[in-house]
Amino acid sequence: MRRSERIVRLTQTLLEQPYRLLSLTEMADQLSSAKSSLSEDLSIIRDVLSKEGTGILETHAGAAGGVRYIPRIPAWQVQDFVQEMCRILADPERILPGGYLYISDILGQPDVLDRAGRIFAHIFSEMEADYVLTVETKGIPLAVSTARYLHLPTVVVRRDHRVTEGSAVSINYVSGSRRIQTMSLSRRSLPEHSRVLIIDDFMKAGGTAKALIDMMKEFKTAVAGIGVFMSTSEPEDKMLEDYVSLTTLAHVDEISREIQVSKGNFKLSDKER
Amino acid sequence: MRRSERIVRLTQTLLEQPYRLLSLTEMADQLSSAKSSLSEDLSIIRDVLSKEGTGILETHAGAAGGVRYIPRIPAWQVQDFVQEMCRILADPERILPGGYLYISDILGQPDVLDRAGRIFAHIFSEMEADYVLTVETKGIPLAVSTARYLHLPTVVVRRDHRVTEGSAVSINYVSGSRRIQTMSLSRRSLPEHSRVLIIDDFMKAGGTAKALIDMMKEFKTAVAGIGVFMSTSEPEDKMLEDYVSLTTLAHVDEISREIQVSKGNFKLSDKER
Repeated sequence: MRRSERIVRLTQTLLEQPYRLLSLTEMADQLSSAKSSLSEDLSIIRDVLSKEGTGILETHAGAAGGVRYIPRIPAWQVQDFVQEMCRILADPERILPGGYLYISDILGQPDVLDRAGRIFAHIFSEMEADYVLTVETKGIPLAVSTARYLHLPTVVVRRDHRVTEGSAVSINYVSGSRRIQTMSLSRRSLPEHSRVLIIDDFMKAGGTAKALIDMMKEFKTAVAGIGVFMSTSEPEDKMLEDYVSLTTLAHVDEISREIQVSKGNFKLSDKER
Repeated sequence: MRRSERIVRLTQTLLEQPYRLLSLTEMADQLSSAKSSLSEDLSIIRDVLSKEGTGILETHAGAAGGVRYIPRIPAWQVQDFVQEMCRILADPERILPGGYLYISDILGQPDVLDRAGRIFAHIFSEMEADYVLTVETKGIPLAVSTARYLHLPTVVVRRDHRVTEGSAVSINYVSGSRRIQTMSLSRRSLPEHSRVLIIDDFMKAGGTAKALIDMMKEFKTAVAGIGVFMSTSEPEDKMLEDYVSLTTLAHVDEISREIQVSKGNFKLSDKER
């Protein structure tokens, strides 16, 4: 096989399997190539990804050794994306009766999901989470996209308890709208002593995220991080401290039809390994 | 830039943007390369994808011309995947009280979502859908994964009507469990005269899918196809005829703890363009 063909296949194999440790020996077999040629190919791919800021190829030596692709996103792409989101979100047509902001369409766009998932995967890459956790409904696509780039399972907390979920832990909590709400998580869906990354669409006072944290205590499970697509600037004191938001909603005025959305509180780590 | 580097970048650009028409002129600019070299690179990539059965590169000539990557999945990978699913699903530990089968964990696994999404995208690639439609909750990850490979937005029908969705169309229907249920879809989420591909996790009699079809009439929208992860063999006469299932559940016996799962009714088109 020619080098250029090998490079197409290797690039495809790596990009389609983020975070998986791929054995050099197996890849060499599949491509009927010497390991030494493979190493040269991988170093070309590594250099391109590194130069573009789109990924890291991590090499593990030894018998169980191999190579692992870790997706990254360059800072300029994040900035462009967040600016674009702020522009789209500030469209007065999005204002709903009661001063709510319509965002469901955005959270179904494939490019938005892909980009946001990649950003969360980059930000939380060092958190060593075992699962991505979300609560139905609007946060699920975002959680799935993040989980894809981290190669983790997604676990969905339900609002009600279904017979198809088996035995579950249910808790009550007070939501931002001051209503008593219930959430429920199947016992089978999460082994005890895991680490979860919480991903959701929206955070106001943080009541739902706080309830998810409380729920995790029932599963003896640690919360490795919390990421939301949009948080509100008010109330400033949320029910939890450490969360990452991509955008911040400051203001929706139903009368003057003005919306203020700005960059969230996220920071990108520049750490390259 | 060396050919091998260009090929890494081109492969990445194409694979990360399924179904998008990418301009040759823009790509040549970005890579500071002649269009003729680019065409040679693309033909190498095209040959590898075609040989592997993992994708088609469609070239569009003319001023607005470019290249489009259409993801495919080889038949042997589909077969392996479905066999593996049947094996996992037949684990007696999955039997829940009442003879239900626990599948939520499977529908959260990144590899399952990726594979199933890719299979649905392959099967429904000719259907010219504008949206992927699903109903909360368990079908959402599958719908998002399919929509990613088709580069379509995902639209989620809700079980209740939320204030953050704006005005909505609500319908009542009778579900498989013979309960009267409600579903609701925001007016804003789907323009009239669209074409949707319905993706869901499970189908028994087809009551939910039928209700989605009825809902689409309210939006003057055509249903281009229906895909489910699992359907049941009973009742044989479903409330709709044309659907594609990846697996078929024949039997769950709570006493003998036996489960029978087999390949679904799907067919892969072998059409290559």
